[in-house]
Amino acid sequence: MLYIALLHYPVLNKEGKVVATAIANMDIHDIARTAKTFGVEKFYVINPLEAQRRLAGQIVSHWREGYGAAYNPSRKEAFKKVEIKSSLEDVLTEITAVHDGKPQIIVTGANFQGELLTCADLREALKRNHLPYLIIFGTGSGIAQEVVDQADHRLEPVRGKDGYNHLPVRSAVAVILDRVVEI
Amino acid sequence: MLYIALLHYPVLNKEGKVVATAIANMDIHDIARTAKTFGVEKFYVINPLEAQRRLAGQIVSHWREGYGAAYNPSRKEAFKKVEIKSSLEDVLTEITAVHDGKPQIIVTGANFQGELLTCADLREALKRNHLPYLIIFGTGSGIAQEVVDQADHRLEPVRGKDGYNHLPVRSAVAVILDRVVEI
Repeated sequence: MLYIALLHYPVLNKEGKVVATAIANMDIHDIARTAKTFGVEKFYVINPLEAQRRLAGQIVSHWREGYGAAYNPSRKEAFKKVEIKSSLEDVLTEITAVHDGKPQIIVTGANFQGELLTCADLREALKRNHLPYLIIFGTGSGIAQEVVDQADHRLEPVRGKDGYNHLPVRSAVAVILDRVVEI
Repeated sequence: MLYIALLHYPVLNKEGKVVATAIANMDIHDIARTAKTFGVEKFYVINPLEAQRRLAGQIVSHWREGYGAAYNPSRKEAFKKVEIKSSLEDVLTEITAVHDGKPQIIVTGANFQGELLTCADLREALKRNHLPYLIIFGTGSGIAQEVVDQADHRLEPVRGKDGYNHLPVRSAVAVILDRVVEI
């Protein structure tokens, strides 16, 4: 049982300043369609700012129940996967309630090094058991350190040629789901 | 030697009307970064409309030589891969001149059925030899039939769960390159 989340937590940038990331319309569209393609249970959009969540909620409603639902039924199917939450804790509470157990938390990052979970191992784990897994993707400068610290595993990044590691998060989600999900 | 192209040829829609697709800013950004990640030689953006090519050219220049090049050097590296062309013929002429031989043309499509080239076979072919290959991706309703007809191979599509086949082209490019390229 695989869940994914896109985290918009404020993080420190290179200069040590706090930066929040905004919810991008294209992230919701692309990742919702990718989540539907690979049979993900739910795609959580996590943002602590109420105004950001309200905006994202309007986009989701348009495609799930509004004009967009009739205009593009396949988009409607994809948007049924989307849930907007204010914190990771809320997401964990929801998944835990559904499965009567906490999900394994897996974080992703383009710069991860050291001991990492491989996509092949995660694929095997997902095939073998029906426990919930949550893969968290970051935006902007990546996932806040306190979230990385509470994860069960760090996933191996998509390694680019000549060390180039600037894949868009939308594309990274697609590649990683293709690697870990058996359709 | 792998090249990719995003084709914006006018095609017929379900009602039989001719529709042209516009160049989307996000397509150029995402696919350029994905092409750079997977070591693709060049990413051709093909559009027959001069106004569309001019707009795309301004975006590319901004990130390759303009303010964006200094602001975001990794984006500059990705945009070096982008070439804007008015027709597939121009792309084939350019690749043929560089390699002294015509590329193998591979078309993609979410609805392809029948005898298809597998990603595993293409991966082997790319490893084995250094001949040029060109993978063509479509926009809107897909690739124009006359282009499909002149291709050497049709590539197997990314198959989604329960037959869902509405992956964004940006995500499909990422998944397919990850499947066929050995970094």
